[in-house]
Amino acid sequence: MPDNPNTEFKITTGALPGSKKIYVKSENMDNVRVPMREIHLHPSANEVPVRVYDTSGPYSEPSAKIDIYEGLPELRREWILERGDVERYEGREIKPEDNGNTGEKYLAPEFPVKKQPLRAKEGMNVTQLHYARKGIITPEMEFVAVRENIGRKAQAEKLERDGESFGAEIPDYITAEFVRDEIARGRAVLVNNVNHPESEPMIIGRNFLVKINANIGNSAVTSSISEEVDKMVWATRWGADTVMDLSTGRNIHNTREWIIRNSPVPIGTVPIYQALEKVDGVAEDLTWEVYRDTLIEQCEQGVDYFTIHAGVRLPFIHMTAKRITGIVSRGGSIMAKWCLAHHKESFLYTHFEDICEILKKYDVAFSLGDGFRPGSIGDANDEAQFAELITLGELTKIAWKHDVQVFIEGPGHVPMHKIKENMDLQLKHCDEAPFYTLGPLTTDIAPGYDHITSAIGAAQIGWYGTAMLCYVTPKEHLGLPDRNDVKEGVITYKLAAHAADLAKGHPASQLRDDALSRARYEFRWEDQFNLSLDPERARDFHDQTLPKEAHKVAHFCSMCGPKFCSMKITAEVREFAAKKEEAETGMKRMSEEFKKRGSELYLPADEVAEEVAAAE
Amino acid sequence: MPDNPNTEFKITTGALPGSKKIYVKSENMDNVRVPMREIHLHPSANEVPVRVYDTSGPYSEPSAKIDIYEGLPELRREWILERGDVERYEGREIKPEDNGNTGEKYLAPEFPVKKQPLRAKEGMNVTQLHYARKGIITPEMEFVAVRENIGRKAQAEKLERDGESFGAEIPDYITAEFVRDEIARGRAVLVNNVNHPESEPMIIGRNFLVKINANIGNSAVTSSISEEVDKMVWATRWGADTVMDLSTGRNIHNTREWIIRNSPVPIGTVPIYQALEKVDGVAEDLTWEVYRDTLIEQCEQGVDYFTIHAGVRLPFIHMTAKRITGIVSRGGSIMAKWCLAHHKESFLYTHFEDICEILKKYDVAFSLGDGFRPGSIGDANDEAQFAELITLGELTKIAWKHDVQVFIEGPGHVPMHKIKENMDLQLKHCDEAPFYTLGPLTTDIAPGYDHITSAIGAAQIGWYGTAMLCYVTPKEHLGLPDRNDVKEGVITYKLAAHAADLAKGHPASQLRDDALSRARYEFRWEDQFNLSLDPERARDFHDQTLPKEAHKVAHFCSMCGPKFCSMKITAEVREFAAKKEEAETGMKRMSEEFKKRGSELYLPADEVAEEVAAAE
Repeated sequence: MPDNPNTEFKITTGALPGSKKIYVKSENMDNVRVPMREIHLHPSANEVPVRVYDTSGPYSEPSAKIDIYEGLPELRREWILERGDVERYEGREIKPEDNGNTGEKYLAPEFPVKKQPLRAKEGMNVTQLHYARKGIITPEMEFVAVRENIGRKAQAEKLERDGESFGAEIPDYITAEFVRDEIARGRAVLVNNVNHPESEPMIIGRNFLVKINANIGNSAVTSSISEEVDKMVWATRWGADTVMDLSTGRNIHNTREWIIRNSPVPIGTVPIYQALEKVDGVAEDLTWEVYRDTLIEQCEQGVDYFTIHAGVRLPFIHMTAKRITGIVSRGGSIMAKWCLAHHKESFLYTHFEDICEILKKYDVAFSLGDGFRPGSIGDANDEAQFAELITLGELTKIAWKHDVQVFIEGPGHVPMHKIKENMDLQLKHCDEAPFYTLGPLTTDIAPGYDHITSAIGAAQIGWYGTAMLCYVTPKEHLGLPDRNDVKEGVITYKLAAHAADLAKGHPASQLRDDALSRARYEFRWEDQFNLSLDPERARDFHDQTLPKEAHKVAHFCSMCGPKFCSMKITAEVREFAAKKEEAETGMKRMSEEFKKRGSELYLPADEVAEEVAAAE
Repeated sequence: MPDNPNTEFKITTGALPGSKKIYVKSENMDNVRVPMREIHLHPSANEVPVRVYDTSGPYSEPSAKIDIYEGLPELRREWILERGDVERYEGREIKPEDNGNTGEKYLAPEFPVKKQPLRAKEGMNVTQLHYARKGIITPEMEFVAVRENIGRKAQAEKLERDGESFGAEIPDYITAEFVRDEIARGRAVLVNNVNHPESEPMIIGRNFLVKINANIGNSAVTSSISEEVDKMVWATRWGADTVMDLSTGRNIHNTREWIIRNSPVPIGTVPIYQALEKVDGVAEDLTWEVYRDTLIEQCEQGVDYFTIHAGVRLPFIHMTAKRITGIVSRGGSIMAKWCLAHHKESFLYTHFEDICEILKKYDVAFSLGDGFRPGSIGDANDEAQFAELITLGELTKIAWKHDVQVFIEGPGHVPMHKIKENMDLQLKHCDEAPFYTLGPLTTDIAPGYDHITSAIGAAQIGWYGTAMLCYVTPKEHLGLPDRNDVKEGVITYKLAAHAADLAKGHPASQLRDDALSRARYEFRWEDQFNLSLDPERARDFHDQTLPKEAHKVAHFCSMCGPKFCSMKITAEVREFAAKKEEAETGMKRMSEEFKKRGSELYLPADEVAEEVAAAE
């Protein structure tokens, strides 16, 4: 181990441009303080700093001591222990197959710090859903309430309640009691394994901000631990609310440990991937025992949610036979193969209650996988897909019976006119459990641009009610995303999620748009960059045509040049109007006079005004 | 002038990967043959080549002799002359102010070939709308009919009629009579100046394929003629259906001539930009005479459509005073300034019938500009915007009275929930004249990614009925697009337009998706690349992880690696099922047997199937 921490890791730390990390203390709980980012504007703006949601954890705090070899501080440790319902125990021993029986030469190093795992004491249930139903407001819920309220109270008079929410009921102000109630109702999930105390509580539900997930993970052909840790930190820097580690090659266990110990956001996995590695990739050789063992291994490490394809049932498999692209979900195809090989119902389905028993000991959430999601436009919304969705609804109720948190995964490839049906059926069959969708991609013809094809679908389904959007990177269908792809995917999905928040009428979501638009209008270039989702790219693109520092204060841009700028002309229009007469009344009088002079030509302006009023 | 043609031009020519240019002869008119692109698939696919719409002109024909100094061949020359209603005449003389009074040193070279312009003979009207209303089917209409039908007849049995068209009525098969009727109705525009005979006829209307426009053009701070010609050729190579030359600096006249003479697609402009240059950028100094002179200059050059902000009326200007971003349209702000300075109604509005008289002599179409389009989310769908829209509807009817073709420009920045209102009001007020929208951008917070923010809005408004989408590049709000930005913008908008076609239920639009999805499923990597909107990027992204040639035939990809691939597993599932029993019946029997053995655990599968049926 090198003396100098992080030498083998090229992670990015420090504040974002123009930004300062702040910590907002809860008014109700002394031990809850929530990190946010404040973007400071130029004094000429005469505006308060803009606060934005911050997923980046301690990495963006300049004073934080970051040591990847030690992991992040355990933010939630005391909250978990104080409840008195968990115990430390001698965890499962790590076996060679956990890392794909990798030989000495290729075995990735273990994470240096070892801890005993926690689990619920005998007969206890430690899920946030369990507490919520008992009426308990946890510090996690309080944390979430403060976090979701960004900007709402301080700027109450500016709040916009414009929008079409399709039945979502987003309150003006989020209380911890509201959070508790939504969790209790199953409409929101607060996903936090007791063995991942490093993570900052966040909530997934359609009455909250739309969240995004970023997938990382190595495969048999590429990628190393330091790359994956870097991608995780990088993804959260740009706004990933959760990260899924979809590693499938060697070293799965060790890679995951490094990721979890250093992750400020919840981590999800698809445990069947690792289970398959344990049986040397032969799907038929999978057993409940191997799978169960893998679940416990990952629960102990601190994975926060599991994608489980328990809806891929034997009687549905034939429904995929005539599809253009069959079964494209990896987990789904593994289970389909297993079912056919054994002529047996899926062990994920038959053992579903056993899985609930495990998950409630750690507070791991179900992300019920859509193993039959369509892999092409031609396969969207078919019998197989909806048979599975109905099954996921059925399983949701079983999970709830055990007070285990659950959300539902969705498609895939869906043309725009078939997206809403997915949302409507999901809400109906799964009784409003949160929906978590991949895209959907709205065409099949744009490999290399599938982040965009899917953002079109993601923004729409987010508007309709999807609680979390799983990103798609430009490399989808073509290769494994690198660092740049991860950022491109995250920013693309942040903007799609934001578009959805705006359209739903989220009360404070327009504050940032308005602040940026004012900056744009007033040629505060630096503010415009800093308020962007990607300040670095905004600045870089600007500088490609006007690189000089002086141009950052220039009252024009490269599109029109110095004397020909609509923003500038509009400002002159305003000035001109203000000088000549007193602003609005003056201009109205002017147009009245104009009309009196009989200058209307085709349609009198007041008739137009009436028509406008009628149309609105 | 160099001996070797094109030496100063870095234009890209030649076929696209795996593609061959073909020419489909009209069955009705001998002199009409329509270029298309055929994408050839691997023999193992056992499929006919996929035909796709081709906007690239002769540049993608390997045998074509391209000489930028000479311009493209005059495809439509005979069609125009045979009608006997045009005359050649001594055109307007080019004046120094046409090129912004550029001195010798900076004056761009004139286009080497000079031609006398055409115009309608006295008392004649040469618009396609005029012919259409007289019941005449022109070769241009026949060309368009063949062009729009791609793939429909040959694959009639595969046609999908799935979709939600919001009132659009796209026929199974397009006849020239249908084209004529749609033009006569004003619901479609076939835009082709008689002085731009080099262009290939195309149609803009909501019962046809959704089109896209790419903006190019220099500004006072950057860009040269060779760069602009390159961008035009480059944009059409990737699918731009029209190109707008938005140049604003010096050399406007000469730059435009090079572009038009070499453009296979219609060219649009905003004449007020050049008019303003002629009065040294002082909006107040604009006069109807200067503007009129500019219109004639551009009509003679061959500009196919003009953005004219005639809806920016004096009585509406005060409605923008309280906006976050005021007037962001350059044309709109120029006219607003003029109106205020003179306390007069806009000369574009008062002289609208005079403009019609000019345009009908050349068949230049109106693109009625939205000078009050919102420049921020906060300004969307406001009084100013809709007052202008109603005015544009009023002007549409005046244009139609003169048999002048017209389409309507739309926003801007609009959150998702306010997009449909724009489309609905446009259809209503403008009596179904085609809508041509910029984006709309669905958030303000993603500079550097505004091609994506706007593609989300563009796909939706295209679905709702917009006929042509004006692209937005990643440089929007930050700088002038370079070559890479142009391509990124075009491909992004091609996929958005295609998503709209699919959702509208366009009868043949899914053929390409299905072909690509089959290629993907069968690991025909080369076919997958070639069927993509951007074959080069698809290949490049694939090769970043698996560069070897052998991997192009590999039955796996880098995401999962060789032994862990859902596509492969699904194929095995199918094989397995086929071996054991006869495909579907076998699997059904299997699930029946399974049920007989009493293995259902929570919900019988037939109940699920019933629920699925009920839901559909």
